[in-house]
Amino acid sequence: MTTGTRTGVWLIGARGSVATTAVTGCAATTAGLHPPTGMVTETDAFASAGLPPLASLVFGGHDTAACPLPKRAEELTAAGVLPHGLAAAVAAELAAADAEIRPGGPLPGGSHDAEDLITSFAADMTDFRDRLALDRVVVVNVASTEPAPGGAALPPSSLYAAAALRAGCPYVNFTPSTGLRHPALTDALAASGLPHAGRDGKTGQTLLRSVLAPMFHQRALTVRAWSGTNLLGGGDGAALADPAAAAAKNAGKERVLADVFGHVPEGEVHIDEVPALGEWKTAWDHIAFDGFLGSRMILQTTWQGCDSALAAPLVLDLARLTARAHERGLAGPLEDLAFYFKDPEGESSACLADQYARLVAFAASLGEVR
Amino acid sequence: MTTGTRTGVWLIGARGSVATTAVTGCAATTAGLHPPTGMVTETDAFASAGLPPLASLVFGGHDTAACPLPKRAEELTAAGVLPHGLAAAVAAELAAADAEIRPGGPLPGGSHDAEDLITSFAADMTDFRDRLALDRVVVVNVASTEPAPGGAALPPSSLYAAAALRAGCPYVNFTPSTGLRHPALTDALAASGLPHAGRDGKTGQTLLRSVLAPMFHQRALTVRAWSGTNLLGGGDGAALADPAAAAAKNAGKERVLADVFGHVPEGEVHIDEVPALGEWKTAWDHIAFDGFLGSRMILQTTWQGCDSALAAPLVLDLARLTARAHERGLAGPLEDLAFYFKDPEGESSACLADQYARLVAFAASLGEVR
Amino acid sequence: MTTGTRTGVWLIGARGSVATTAVTGCAATTAGLHPPTGMVTETDAFASAGLPPLASLVFGGHDTAACPLPKRAEELTAAGVLPHGLAAAVAAELAAADAEIRPGGPLPGGSHDAEDLITSFAADMTDFRDRLALDRVVVVNVASTEPAPGGAALPPSSLYAAAALRAGCPYVNFTPSTGLRHPALTDALAASGLPHAGRDGKTGQTLLRSVLAPMFHQRALTVRAWSGTNLLGGGDGAALADPAAAAAKNAGKERVLADVFGHVPEGEVHIDEVPALGEWKTAWDHIAFDGFLGSRMILQTTWQGCDSALAAPLVLDLARLTARAHERGLAGPLEDLAFYFKDPEGESSACLADQYARLVAFAASLGEVR
Amino acid sequence: MTTGTRTGVWLIGARGSVATTAVTGCAATTAGLHPPTGMVTETDAFASAGLPPLASLVFGGHDTAACPLPKRAEELTAAGVLPHGLAAAVAAELAAADAEIRPGGPLPGGSHDAEDLITSFAADMTDFRDRLALDRVVVVNVASTEPAPGGAALPPSSLYAAAALRAGCPYVNFTPSTGLRHPALTDALAASGLPHAGRDGKTGQTLLRSVLAPMFHQRALTVRAWSGTNLLGGGDGAALADPAAAAAKNAGKERVLADVFGHVPEGEVHIDEVPALGEWKTAWDHIAFDGFLGSRMILQTTWQGCDSALAAPLVLDLARLTARAHERGLAGPLEDLAFYFKDPEGESSACLADQYARLVAFAASLGEVR
Repeated sequence: MTTGTRTGVWLIGARGSVATTAVTGCAATTAGLHPPTGMVTETDAFASAGLPPLASLVFGGHDTAACPLPKRAEELTAAGVLPHGLAAAVAAELAAADAEIRPGGPLPGGSHDAEDLITSFAADMTDFRDRLALDRVVVVNVASTEPAPGGAALPPSSLYAAAALRAGCPYVNFTPSTGLRHPALTDALAASGLPHAGRDGKTGQTLLRSVLAPMFHQRALTVRAWSGTNLLGGGDGAALADPAAAAAKNAGKERVLADVFGHVPEGEVHIDEVPALGEWKTAWDHIAFDGFLGSRMILQTTWQGCDSALAAPLVLDLARLTARAHERGLAGPLEDLAFYFKDPEGESSACLADQYARLVAFAASLGEVR
Repeated sequence: MTTGTRTGVWLIGARGSVATTAVTGCAATTAGLHPPTGMVTETDAFASAGLPPLASLVFGGHDTAACPLPKRAEELTAAGVLPHGLAAAVAAELAAADAEIRPGGPLPGGSHDAEDLITSFAADMTDFRDRLALDRVVVVNVASTEPAPGGAALPPSSLYAAAALRAGCPYVNFTPSTGLRHPALTDALAASGLPHAGRDGKTGQTLLRSVLAPMFHQRALTVRAWSGTNLLGGGDGAALADPAAAAAKNAGKERVLADVFGHVPEGEVHIDEVPALGEWKTAWDHIAFDGFLGSRMILQTTWQGCDSALAAPLVLDLARLTARAHERGLAGPLEDLAFYFKDPEGESSACLADQYARLVAFAASLGEVR
Repeated sequence: MTTGTRTGVWLIGARGSVATTAVTGCAATTAGLHPPTGMVTETDAFASAGLPPLASLVFGGHDTAACPLPKRAEELTAAGVLPHGLAAAVAAELAAADAEIRPGGPLPGGSHDAEDLITSFAADMTDFRDRLALDRVVVVNVASTEPAPGGAALPPSSLYAAAALRAGCPYVNFTPSTGLRHPALTDALAASGLPHAGRDGKTGQTLLRSVLAPMFHQRALTVRAWSGTNLLGGGDGAALADPAAAAAKNAGKERVLADVFGHVPEGEVHIDEVPALGEWKTAWDHIAFDGFLGSRMILQTTWQGCDSALAAPLVLDLARLTARAHERGLAGPLEDLAFYFKDPEGESSACLADQYARLVAFAASLGEVR
Repeated sequence: MTTGTRTGVWLIGARGSVATTAVTGCAATTAGLHPPTGMVTETDAFASAGLPPLASLVFGGHDTAACPLPKRAEELTAAGVLPHGLAAAVAAELAAADAEIRPGGPLPGGSHDAEDLITSFAADMTDFRDRLALDRVVVVNVASTEPAPGGAALPPSSLYAAAALRAGCPYVNFTPSTGLRHPALTDALAASGLPHAGRDGKTGQTLLRSVLAPMFHQRALTVRAWSGTNLLGGGDGAALADPAAAAAKNAGKERVLADVFGHVPEGEVHIDEVPALGEWKTAWDHIAFDGFLGSRMILQTTWQGCDSALAAPLVLDLARLTARAHERGLAGPLEDLAFYFKDPEGESSACLADQYARLVAFAASLGEVR
């Protein structure tokens, strides 16, 4: 990547917790205020991949909410996600990003027409790229999970995805929403020649499952039942307490088990909204397995994490990797990024270690001199 | 391996829970009474490795205890380790193995002299091999953990290991005891040309750590403290409640973290004897880690397992793999078996997935036509 | 209670796991084969209450299943609920109880008419009492939880309850089913002059809540959210996975929190059927509470129990206490038995310690010389 | 209590986390900035007890550290114990308390003589009371736990306790240190006619045990093993990682079990220092119990709390109750305050519910018109 170039990161859901944390954290890391904890692309294995530097990232995006980013950063500070004082320290960067956020649909004139919305959204993306003289813009969906769609109409996530295609922007779907995976977008996607990645960032329970399930499998232990309960505060809790949205998310969680074991064991997954938890989430897993001669054993795990803090560095990773892939002329689904997703593109291994090895090899290939 | 050949498995601690479960389970699996749950060498990836069939294994060993194996099997049935009725179903095999158990030191004449003991133990092993016309005998240490040795005298585990060398038997150390890792044995080991493997089977907390630690590392999350408590019933609980024995065991547990992270995080490991738990053990781990921008997160795990049922199939795996390695003429430390150990030979990766990949490749190499 | 008298215990669901365990355990305890663990009425505080001795209890009941009690006891042995050998040791008592079980549900002629069923059931109860010359018969509902009823028709549990009234039998409802709490039974109940108790035995998660909720309340800590997940194997898991049945059960669980706090905190309760758990259940609770100056704290509990083994001794307790209450001429709801129930009669304290104190005082009153 | 009077609270360890939180919280609650969460004496049951109002409390104390209270409050804010902004809001109260803190430990002249120290400490207390015209001064020990003393010399906690007696101040020991429980102080204590209370505030694991142990006991369930591990950050973690100090603390924890069950079950308690946890602590308990017919069951609990936030409101409670007891002329050990302590005065019930009932009755008696 030539020195002096700049890469745009266009966030769908740009005023949400994940987006706010990503913008804040990118500025904080660039300024040396915090180490890049949780950002895989800042580790040694990625040093030669030619990724755009964090300092070269420029943020914008769409959101239907109006609360300014600096105020959202204050809210996240009060919620314990961001350290005190950081929002003030990066106030300029937050204001700059805020100035590049455009309203998500419906349009000012009130149109709900899909074609109008796509055109308008694409124009926003193009304007961002042209006006700021960016080399490219990666569109990343970090909006709240939408209900599983019914009928032929494009859900909102797909409208934004279609706009990305039209604007010639690589696309990453960090949520379980439909995005590019809609039959109406198949042809446009194929024709676009753009790289894309998804779906549904793997930040907690499923991350754990992607190392624990292979462990049981490699040790030839028989998992009889895998049950889980997720307690989510914040906005995603509300979205996922909707059964249809939860169904979308759970499909991703079950996919890991199905891929590793060849079947889905007994057991259910619950997602509860618990506003008292604020920006934090807790996941309890209970795994009943059989050992030698039918002996019954149990593993339980409890994961207490901050969703935004887990997701934000991965969003930055994905924006950088996808931008670099675009620069290198790669097209189509980036199956090498399965490390990041619950429901990745392609048929790759669901084992995190395999996914990591593949990611590292991908990074090496991105850095190769041609 | 030629049809009709037989392989000896000589167990140090042959009347213990692990040994009794291994002998019972080998017979039960051979007879089709139970699936080979927990036995990695019975999975597809090992089908062409030329391992000795389970039906070809012949058991014997040393023990200082006198309780007959059939009675030990009844005790393990009452303790919930073995299913009811199984001990009766394999009574012949238990009796046959029991007939091949010889007393561990001191000798009948009362000698405690190391050289006398080694000579006597080696004679027992040789006699077993010759009398039963076995192709080879693999010696496996599954005795209770001994205190970390002080002084120059060989601890009991090393006397048995020396005897294995003298008898020309490959050796596996499934415990944290010293075994072959004693300076006084270095020359004899090098001269023996025998394959050997160890140390300290990875059956619970450390198994988990070998997948969780790489997960944190690959995700660039900073582990600040890793604390653990083990509650053990049975004999090993008593042995490990001894601080010196616990120190040996904990060194293995910490090695995984040190290997993955490059340093050992804060936190202690406790091993408590809790006789009320019988043959079961519970391990609680508490992992405090930092995410993006210093956010504090926690993972806790609770593992409730039956130690003998976890260990026994791995003992059978190791006996088969080491026997095959010996048949193929391999010598020295079998670093490819790190999958099984807390404190493996050599400097291999501490990540379970890496170890599994290496094990599978090793199995393939064992099966290659030369 | 005069020596030589005998008390009948008529179990609705007499071939179920709870009933089988109660019959087996009563015989085992009487024979001195096991201590009366879990049976509160065998502790010192109840020694002078004049309760019918365990040896004087005679069992019978209704069930729609046909599997003989001795075979059910073997099944519970295989499932780890009953110790090996016990079913054989009390075979005579199991056979005797089995001979007193009458078919529930539609009559042989096929009638589903409520009045016919009540008449038939009451005749079975009366016949049991008269033929065996029992002083009295306590009817105890331990059948699987039925769905919350809709419409005016009496649900099965209420048919049996009505039969108990008609037969002049005191009645205990150990399940969340309707039983006597149906408007159509109000008058008959009032007229009967019979003591009765219920509803929904408190054996796991709710038992814990009945001590933990008062702890938070007495310490003036603010519970913000109380979430729970129950994993149940066995028959009750299947019954409760039905949303309507679960709703009935959850109402009882929430009642404890509402009674202690004056409101129900945030959080949901899930009941999952996990057949792999067999007769065992696991309950995870996650309690988010505020301390001084708004500090956020968490308590989590995991309860792993055997439902039948928890319930059976309480069923024996309740049969004895209710029989004695009947002997002493008490009528109406036995509010002093709230210690045993999730959803007790009356408006007593939901704090277990208060309930225990009241129970002990009740036992003393039962023993008073008049 | 007459309007206008003021009560002194003299804190041993006045610059520690508990003391700082207590002073901050008292001011915050008085100012209406926070509800009195965790303060039992602010609930309805204590409204008529005549306790000194929070607004009437005046703080001072001894400490060997020099860091000013306002700075300590900032540190506790950064550690997440105090909400942001609160330290500034109560800066005046913090400064006022800070001005009343006197150096503990060796006197300026360097004397380590016990008599000199007692005299000097008592003079500080007397001066505080006289100079500020306080009605009375309650001395409360909230210093770090000291090692279990050896030999006849008075440990520091006893020097301060002796000073309290000499100054005529009621005394509360919130720590497991010796305080008044030293044979050399027996006579002076008896002669003083002062009320006193202790020992070792019950804020986490032991609080839980005081409701869970009675639950098992009342249900006639047999606890076979009770194991626990405590992870403590902060200063107390360092103090308690010292085996001698831990021994003092564990004695209190075991006392609850011994009092309820009549014996101490199997199992150990560990206290680990884990600096990464900061001001937070985590306690894991594993309870193995038997149910009916010997069935094996398990309860596990995990308590994640902030020690200072749990302790501080109880310190305020105790200061108020002890002050009022002094006003009412009560002398000797206040056994009615067992609700607050791991190792209370006298032989009262270890069941929290009993202790609460007794505390409420005590509050009522304090309010009675004489």
